[in-house]
Amino acid sequence: MKTEKEKMLDGEIYHANDPELVKERRNARRLTRLFNQTSETEMDQRTDLLKTLFGSTGKSLYIEPTFRCDYGYNIHVGENFYANFDCVILDVCKVEIGDNCFIAPCVNIYTATHPLNAAERISGAEYGKPVTIGDNVWIGGRTVINPGVRIGNNVVIGSGSVVTKDVPDNVAVAGNPARIIKRIG
Amino acid sequence: MKTEKEKMLDGEIYHANDPELVKERRNARRLTRLFNQTSETEMDQRTDLLKTLFGSTGKSLYIEPTFRCDYGYNIHVGENFYANFDCVILDVCKVEIGDNCFIAPCVNIYTATHPLNAAERISGAEYGKPVTIGDNVWIGGRTVINPGVRIGNNVVIGSGSVVTKDVPDNVAVAGNPARIIKRIG
Amino acid sequence: MKTEKEKMLDGEIYHANDPELVKERRNARRLTRLFNQTSETEMDQRTDLLKTLFGSTGKSLYIEPTFRCDYGYNIHVGENFYANFDCVILDVCKVEIGDNCFIAPCVNIYTATHPLNAAERISGAEYGKPVTIGDNVWIGGRTVINPGVRIGNNVVIGSGSVVTKDVPDNVAVAGNPARIIKRIG
Repeated sequence: MKTEKEKMLDGEIYHANDPELVKERRNARRLTRLFNQTSETEMDQRTDLLKTLFGSTGKSLYIEPTFRCDYGYNIHVGENFYANFDCVILDVCKVEIGDNCFIAPCVNIYTATHPLNAAERISGAEYGKPVTIGDNVWIGGRTVINPGVRIGNNVVIGSGSVVTKDVPDNVAVAGNPARIIKRIG
Repeated sequence: MKTEKEKMLDGEIYHANDPELVKERRNARRLTRLFNQTSETEMDQRTDLLKTLFGSTGKSLYIEPTFRCDYGYNIHVGENFYANFDCVILDVCKVEIGDNCFIAPCVNIYTATHPLNAAERISGAEYGKPVTIGDNVWIGGRTVINPGVRIGNNVVIGSGSVVTKDVPDNVAVAGNPARIIKRIG
Repeated sequence: MKTEKEKMLDGEIYHANDPELVKERRNARRLTRLFNQTSETEMDQRTDLLKTLFGSTGKSLYIEPTFRCDYGYNIHVGENFYANFDCVILDVCKVEIGDNCFIAPCVNIYTATHPLNAAERISGAEYGKPVTIGDNVWIGGRTVINPGVRIGNNVVIGSGSVVTKDVPDNVAVAGNPARIIKRIG
């Protein structure tokens, strides 16, 4: 029989009030709070805290506080990762981000979702879908990435986009919902 | 003759620099600041501060800091209320939210608005329209709810929506402006 | 030969890891951190910090924390400027805002942009385009203003807008991308 955490990681219906998950979220809250309380001179502490929090990172990564996430260990970022102010990643499932990705301010990446049926939803049942982002992706400010979305390599996402579907390599998308607006060389 | 506060609550043109209103906003700023400064271990303090701040609540409610509002006392939430990071509620008029509502990160609910006419607006005249949200509503991340909007029961609002019009019971809406995309149940 | 700062200010390709720019951003981070840490009773300190941070201001200005920007000295606001919670201004080029402008919560104004070509972008090359906003403009909550946009006088921007093109005087715009929805006065 699976634990609630195992169900969560496998994208099955689970309950977030499970004691193991509550404890893990509290740990992520503590680490992100410490990260968000650092000052602009404490660059090494910021990097150390992110490397403790995330599942895996490249050697070089930079995130501007405020940053928020659910568990942290489901977030995997490649080399040369950059995220500007107010990034939120709800990582109940894996969020895998390639090398050289730039994230503008106020971007939200969600893996967490709920049943559409009200009775099911208010019973506390929820589930997740992983998000995958390729190499060399630039995500414009205030973009939302929805659960289950896969984004290819060399993609540019216009500011204010709501990305509800997969995005192939080498395109620019924009809008709500986001649509392809240009092929990129 | 009505006070500025009475005009505000009645949805009439008022001036926010009124001393009574300035004092009440400052009190809400203080309570939300204390709330936002709590750590992840201070769950009871969080609940107590929200029950002090809000007009009424159920027994159980949970909000992730950061939370911001204008007055607090105009916010009424039912049982089992949950709001994730960075919820903003501009409550110059009543915001009534039913039972079992889930609010994803970065949702903004506005009752505050200004005249379209520039001369009127820059004189400081402003006004509000109440917002009503039914039972069992799930509001997706980065959604904006505009002044005067009424949302029915069992509604699901897709992430990144801008809700400019009333939403009936038992539907999912999405987009900017939000439109019905599905009947539920 | 131009310094990186001169190239940045002139809207040419530059590299943000230049030591002079790193130092200036760190100074802006320090001032915005101090601003964001003030309490609701420290109104004079808030005004003083903003007048130190910005390129120029009117006599009266009011911003609700949290506020974030890149350099500060590229931001010029007229008389009677007001910005609500969570305003983000990426000011690698000039942001000129006229008199009597009201900015609702969570508005982002960007001058910073990157090359669409992935190889160029990940080399660290970036550039900016100035943003100009006229007098008596009201920017609705969660609006994004893109690099290079010029907004006229007496404009009203609906909540959740993504403004990608210039906006003439005396209109209301809304949507993603924002389009004219009404003539005003």
